[in-house]
Amino acid sequence: MFVTPQRFDFAGPLTLRSGAQLRDYSLAVETYGTLNAARSNAVLICHALNASHHVAGAYADDKENLGWWDNMVGPGKPVDTNRFFVIGVNNLGSCFGSTGPASLNPTTGKPYGADFPVVTVEDWVDAQAQLADVLGIQRFAAVMGGSLGGMQALAWSTRYPDRIAHCIVIASTPKLSAQNIAFNDVARQAIMTDPDFHGGHYYEHGIVPKRGLRVARMIGHITYLSDDDMAEKFGRTLRADNLKFGFDAEFQIESYLRYQGDKFSEYFDANTYLLITKALDYFDPASQHGGNLAAALAKTKSKFFVVSFTTDWRFAPERSREIVRALLEHKRAVTYAEIDAPHGHDAFLLEDPRYHAEIRAYFNRIATEVRA
Amino acid sequence: MFVTPQRFDFAGPLTLRSGAQLRDYSLAVETYGTLNAARSNAVLICHALNASHHVAGAYADDKENLGWWDNMVGPGKPVDTNRFFVIGVNNLGSCFGSTGPASLNPTTGKPYGADFPVVTVEDWVDAQAQLADVLGIQRFAAVMGGSLGGMQALAWSTRYPDRIAHCIVIASTPKLSAQNIAFNDVARQAIMTDPDFHGGHYYEHGIVPKRGLRVARMIGHITYLSDDDMAEKFGRTLRADNLKFGFDAEFQIESYLRYQGDKFSEYFDANTYLLITKALDYFDPASQHGGNLAAALAKTKSKFFVVSFTTDWRFAPERSREIVRALLEHKRAVTYAEIDAPHGHDAFLLEDPRYHAEIRAYFNRIATEVRA
Repeated sequence: MFVTPQRFDFAGPLTLRSGAQLRDYSLAVETYGTLNAARSNAVLICHALNASHHVAGAYADDKENLGWWDNMVGPGKPVDTNRFFVIGVNNLGSCFGSTGPASLNPTTGKPYGADFPVVTVEDWVDAQAQLADVLGIQRFAAVMGGSLGGMQALAWSTRYPDRIAHCIVIASTPKLSAQNIAFNDVARQAIMTDPDFHGGHYYEHGIVPKRGLRVARMIGHITYLSDDDMAEKFGRTLRADNLKFGFDAEFQIESYLRYQGDKFSEYFDANTYLLITKALDYFDPASQHGGNLAAALAKTKSKFFVVSFTTDWRFAPERSREIVRALLEHKRAVTYAEIDAPHGHDAFLLEDPRYHAEIRAYFNRIATEVRA
Repeated sequence: MFVTPQRFDFAGPLTLRSGAQLRDYSLAVETYGTLNAARSNAVLICHALNASHHVAGAYADDKENLGWWDNMVGPGKPVDTNRFFVIGVNNLGSCFGSTGPASLNPTTGKPYGADFPVVTVEDWVDAQAQLADVLGIQRFAAVMGGSLGGMQALAWSTRYPDRIAHCIVIASTPKLSAQNIAFNDVARQAIMTDPDFHGGHYYEHGIVPKRGLRVARMIGHITYLSDDDMAEKFGRTLRADNLKFGFDAEFQIESYLRYQGDKFSEYFDANTYLLITKALDYFDPASQHGGNLAAALAKTKSKFFVVSFTTDWRFAPERSREIVRALLEHKRAVTYAEIDAPHGHDAFLLEDPRYHAEIRAYFNRIATEVRA
């Protein structure tokens, strides 16, 4: 399936949760499948930290470059693009085509850099709603995401309750814990104290704070994998036959993590990393309701499908159960699946038969509700 | 209780596990209490990552500077210095007085820096045995340590089985997991990629890789605390009344961690941090026995006291149980206490009534065995 990214320009301004405004902005978008005549079969896929609008398929001129959720979205796949019109959108502040810190600041004519405003999950959802307007979609059959993407789906359910029929929240949480925030802040400190960061204005210096970004990614990566999975994949396996008693990578896990860090620091933007971790930190819909999540979810009208994975220690199943319990207080229709999977937080991206069967069954049910 | 650090010089050479040799070396030492006539009441306390020979008491000219285990060791305390002669020793490679990377390399007349050899738990124990010889201690009533210190106690039991009556292993593990190694390596990468590291020879440049060391400490600190404890102490509490939507510390947990990192980077040596994390990585007594821990412990002759803490996710109780099970295969006398404590890995340093009562009771038992 070959796809073509599109770009949508918005005149703005978009007023952000912080009070700052984005004067004008663009969103990079991909769509898969066909919008039906009733415009009732649209599914919005929200991305997590390092992903983009490129959810599924490949490019004609870059056939190896598969979308980040290509195992989930496509013809005949759990989210079946023969039946649904699926939309992937790159979030504001990202580095894959939507307006972000590397874009030109219309006020200065130079890249925003550190002057790009802090964006939140709610801001992203507002921009996605603008996109839906342009695409003529009044109501999504479903909004779906994993991790930070799940937060966006949840924000859709409270912010635009009339515009979402099904809210699908996978491997997510109603808010970060202190430990989650701590890991994010260490990653940010690694980036911000890299001398090549130049206070966020490194573009002008023709350099990138790769060292900090590399360490940030290594930290993140540890939290995406389960302890058991790491033990099984790497354990204490050495790279060579004997111990070298030096500081080159001695164990396989070291070379794996360093490689992941190196690769990431080649393509990802450091300012985007900072912004996206902040969006994670700030998400806390209950905070405007005295910490009462059920109160925050009182205005929702959609049905919900919540999925968690047993070995996810970043956003453990208990965090998903909090969402489920809060929804049940309002007698919302909630389906909950706790998948016994060994791959930690990353499980939401991987092909697992039970997980995919659950998603497929749920979308089969959505399909029966969609007016043609 | 005022104490005075001592320095013991050794002519060497000490042949290390790596094959490298230390030509001569010094150990910084403190002792508390009095060695009895039979020299049978000596207790060796082994330190963990960032601690030293200063286990207990304070200095006459620095009364605020309490030893790192002062709540455990002293007159009338669980390890009662009215009855036991307690020894604290700074390990080789450290930065608190024993020979380490900041010491002068006798070959070059300049600080060792990156040329200081990689040291292992076994090397430390060998140096401690040299110290015991000088002090005239043929057999310790107990060797005791927490975390990395527990590894040293365990190494004493296998390396010098006739010289240790009781081996006390607290909040430790028979080997690091892949995840443990991963956290260590990220910390090392943060230090080694700091431009001020200068390949480990930063002393000559009159600078210290503080940025890397700060990030390393922040990462470490997260793994010392339990998720629950962090949630209870910090949760999502803000520093100010309102969100600032910026990159200054927004949540209390951020300012706490940054402060811990700053403080640590002021007094700790980066090369020492690298060396000590490597010593952790390399510890794996079972590896010379086909991965069979019971086989590695077959030669032990001491009695054992193993202690773990329920919320320690760095070295979880299951890792202590592995040690206990391996010892039981050889019908060794093992006491095991799993303390229900909320403070994660750090619990071994904190004053907890149940924990301290267990240690006190065990030392009361040791006292009955000590010949006067």
